Amino acid sequence: VNLLNGVFHEGTTAPFDVTDRGLTLGDGLFETMPVFGGKPFRLADHLDRLERGLRLLGFAVARARLEADVAAMAARAGSSGVLRLTVTRGAGARGLAPSPDPAPAVIVTLAPFNPALVFEPATLATASVRRNDRSPVSRLKALPYLDNVLALQEAIRAGAKDALMLNTADHVACSSVANVFRIKDDRLETPPLEDGVLDGITRRLVLDHAVGLGFKPAECSLTPGDLMAADAVFLTNSVRLIQPVAVLDGRSLATNDGPARILAALKRLISADHATSGTVAPF
Amino acid sequence: VNLLNGVFHEGTTAPFDVTDRGLTLGDGLFETMPVFGGKPFRLADHLDRLERGLRLLGFAVARARLEADVAAMAARAGSSGVLRLTVTRGAGARGLAPSPDPAPAVIVTLAPFNPALVFEPATLATASVRRNDRSPVSRLKALPYLDNVLALQEAIRAGAKDALMLNTADHVACSSVANVFRIKDDRLETPPLEDGVLDGITRRLVLDHAVGLGFKPAECSLTPGDLMAADAVFLTNSVRLIQPVAVLDGRSLATNDGPARILAALKRLISADHATSGTVAPF
Repeated sequence: VNLLNGVFHEGTTAPFDVTDRGLTLGDGLFETMPVFGGKPFRLADHLDRLERGLRLLGFAVARARLEADVAAMAARAGSSGVLRLTVTRGAGARGLAPSPDPAPAVIVTLAPFNPALVFEPATLATASVRRNDRSPVSRLKALPYLDNVLALQEAIRAGAKDALMLNTADHVACSSVANVFRIKDDRLETPPLEDGVLDGITRRLVLDHAVGLGFKPAECSLTPGDLMAADAVFLTNSVRLIQPVAVLDGRSLATNDGPARILAALKRLISADHATSGTVAPF
Repeated sequence: VNLLNGVFHEGTTAPFDVTDRGLTLGDGLFETMPVFGGKPFRLADHLDRLERGLRLLGFAVARARLEADVAAMAARAGSSGVLRLTVTRGAGARGLAPSPDPAPAVIVTLAPFNPALVFEPATLATASVRRNDRSPVSRLKALPYLDNVLALQEAIRAGAKDALMLNTADHVACSSVANVFRIKDDRLETPPLEDGVLDGITRRLVLDHAVGLGFKPAECSLTPGDLMAADAVFLTNSVRLIQPVAVLDGRSLATNDGPARILAALKRLISADHATSGTVAPF
């Protein structure tokens, strides 16, 4: 089932406008979030981020419309699921100039939550495709993911599971689908948004809870060498939560108990947020 | 009317898979070409470019399928039109990893050809959004155009009609929808593809016919200063053909008869290619 502009359609097909700028130009944003017991985890954070991005794109969708569509789909998720909310600028005439009066499209889909991805060790290969830190799009969860798709394909060809993407200044940006952190002594470091980094919801949660776990959090530029020299490297993302990085470009990385302690803290947050739903997250 | 996977649908709506990776990830390519007398101009060049791009993305669509779909829509174009051919990797599961066995989607739409855009003088403002020359996507006509949309919005806010996009090395890449050339003495210069430049069909035609028009063509990196110091600056694109650039960042640029001579040569090419169709291009 899928939800297009507030109407449910069976399967994955819906009567869609093929001149929609999300399809023709990548002109839109999305959010992906886990749903436990019918309740999306940190929905308000996801909608806040979406609204900040839409302001940068120059159009808006009523928060109540987004909340209603998400709620309608989340109610069908059973005990767990992964909900994707896509917002495009809607149909448009040929050319790049947006209509002054856009009619945005809102699409919601649901996929299974796969607990096996949580804390699955990652192996990374550095991709030649760079993250464009010189565009604000690199800081948005925007539809254009083709750079990341090509980076992932490169990494898979190199025998890794995911890509390490650098920015145009040779600094670490992200994996194809996750933020990157390193632990060094008591420091917990991740690249700043200016380095071409998505403002990840889990990234922010980890930074916000770092002090309580005994870490000194910092947003600072990192090189691949900084990852090689770390005590531990891990990835964050809304549906995989934490993934320790075991290998970078064929070299084994050090690790410690930091990533597991941070995962445990995230699980406590999820349990606390979802306690009233009576459902325990499936991990 | 629109054509989705070989089936015509009324209006702009079709039964579309909302998990199509063209929509969810910008994972696809497109071509835009003018149609005169039912015949697309330089169709073979467009399909060659599309096939080169699909190889880089790692999937293929039979040439005969693309030709049949284009022909079916071009036959409805009347005396002139602008045809868009979109190819996506098709529906996909959640996540970035492409299916090893994709079922690509092919979409064809038609818009009016607007002769007023041909040789319309352009005014440019340099955008802060940069072209990502560090990704091969910058050399493809790929679905992700959001960087260019944001650049265009910036330019419009600055009082210009189009954006000048620089790459991450501060060199000229393109406008939001066109390649950039400059004339200096007898030289006809345009940035090389490595500078983050689409391999434009009209760009290539202009380079190929430059010698016959008395120019020495060159692909070489250009700075904004090189444009300011030019004898003439112009844009090329498949549906606007040639646009002289009158203003860059509020400063008037020099011009000469070069752009008009090049446009006249392109019109002769179109007339020759379309002579058998019995239709004269509407300009």
